[in-house]
Amino acid sequence: MEGMNSEASAVKLPECFSSVIPGWFSEISPMWPGEAHSLKVEKILFQGKSEYQNVIVFQSSTYGKVLVLDGVIQLTERDECAYQEMITHLPLCSIPNPKKVSKQFFPRVAVGFDDPRVTLHIGDGVAFLKAVPEGTYDAVIVDSSDPIGPAQELFEKPFFQSVAKALRPGGVVCTQAESIWLHMHIIEDIVENCRQIFKGAVNYAWTSVPTYPSGVIGFMLCTTEGPPVDFKHPINPIDADDSHIKTKGPLKFYNSEMHSAAFSLPSFARKVIESKSD
Amino acid sequence: MEGMNSEASAVKLPECFSSVIPGWFSEISPMWPGEAHSLKVEKILFQGKSEYQNVIVFQSSTYGKVLVLDGVIQLTERDECAYQEMITHLPLCSIPNPKKVSKQFFPRVAVGFDDPRVTLHIGDGVAFLKAVPEGTYDAVIVDSSDPIGPAQELFEKPFFQSVAKALRPGGVVCTQAESIWLHMHIIEDIVENCRQIFKGAVNYAWTSVPTYPSGVIGFMLCTTEGPPVDFKHPINPIDADDSHIKTKGPLKFYNSEMHSAAFSLPSFARKVIESKSD
Repeated sequence: MEGMNSEASAVKLPECFSSVIPGWFSEISPMWPGEAHSLKVEKILFQGKSEYQNVIVFQSSTYGKVLVLDGVIQLTERDECAYQEMITHLPLCSIPNPKKVSKQFFPRVAVGFDDPRVTLHIGDGVAFLKAVPEGTYDAVIVDSSDPIGPAQELFEKPFFQSVAKALRPGGVVCTQAESIWLHMHIIEDIVENCRQIFKGAVNYAWTSVPTYPSGVIGFMLCTTEGPPVDFKHPINPIDADDSHIKTKGPLKFYNSEMHSAAFSLPSFARKVIESKSD
Repeated sequence: MEGMNSEASAVKLPECFSSVIPGWFSEISPMWPGEAHSLKVEKILFQGKSEYQNVIVFQSSTYGKVLVLDGVIQLTERDECAYQEMITHLPLCSIPNPKKVSKQFFPRVAVGFDDPRVTLHIGDGVAFLKAVPEGTYDAVIVDSSDPIGPAQELFEKPFFQSVAKALRPGGVVCTQAESIWLHMHIIEDIVENCRQIFKGAVNYAWTSVPTYPSGVIGFMLCTTEGPPVDFKHPINPIDADDSHIKTKGPLKFYNSEMHSAAFSLPSFARKVIESKSD
């Protein structure tokens, strides 16, 4: 630990931490070359290796608890509301009466496990969806990590085909679709694949998440052929203070205005995405 | 330079660089405690001290040239379009025929100095505005740095009063107003001040800028009493491919949809800002 300052010595850190700012966690990846976001670490709460990934949970100094998989921040308590609320409400507020929803827990954490409406399947989402009878779901939400590592398959055509098969006519899918600032080439491929497979609407939406690289992340929202879905104007408008929402508290981030705004794209991104969409 | 790796030795860096990631520039500030964004440095192009601030310009490895004032990233070539296009077009597309505009160059760089329509005054913007005859401007754009350091006055009530005085009835101001993720307490104060001083509309808008802390930055858009201004529905709709725009190239980021979407706020921010606005 030679060369580390006293701040760092107070917190015993795994190797991936100390390689950059002593006492801080830094996120470095070929997915975002030449930049790194760092969070100051108060305490490591968990570290281990699952069958699939390296897992670290630490208490950060200003972002609450942080979950890291294979060196990449998956969520922090301070800003998880933006990602979690958007990836779920963008699809579910866009169809009239969503009942049957498959959230692919690969590999993020999500709330609501103890909701009586939830049946939790832990396993390989790719295999799970292949085995599902045709037309089973109203909505599929794919909360994947980046396409390097175990989530790679979730960005490929055969998986999108399984999703389309698992959806009822006019069913919706929402899948994590990276950053317009960093990954336009990946997005371009995803849009192209989705246009071939989902014969209803194919839309890209995005949201601000401070602890994700470039500070934003996007979603592909697509439908199979069937009753039309107007993603930009949610059919189930809900707002933060609506009392009918069965969540553990009011929504912090999502509201109907944010829903519609999420589909507005900067000109540089719109140009690429629309050229693939039409 | 003991302990620095070969990458760092290849690039001779000022002290503020080497203290964090060797060979990288890291932005650490009490304005965003516990987090840091870092960019890999290829070459320092300029470093010096102006009358007001420490100035560094470096070539980054993946964000183009980067301007740093007092240790804080002001712009990078890769994402400046988001900030510059939004801070100018949000106010100027909201009024019918903007002719007289005062852009306070404190202390950012901006394009367009050689446009024949520009008269450039270099100096103290606070003093400049005080001396301007009442009702001179259609629009004032305050491109300030953070309220710690020389820009502090630009966030205070007397300055907003000078702006209001310098504007014609129904004139608009757009001023840099920090991040909803990091600075709600500062924003709350700004909104409260603006409500007292600007008797027309008082609105908050925001945009994605990857190299700013938390990945976003906001703007206050206000008007003096006079012809009403509907900021959310721009009266001058322009889009990236409009040929009448006298810029050096098409807009990369701004379009009318992004304009309207910029005023949609997450519930946690809307709650605070609307409580101050009404």
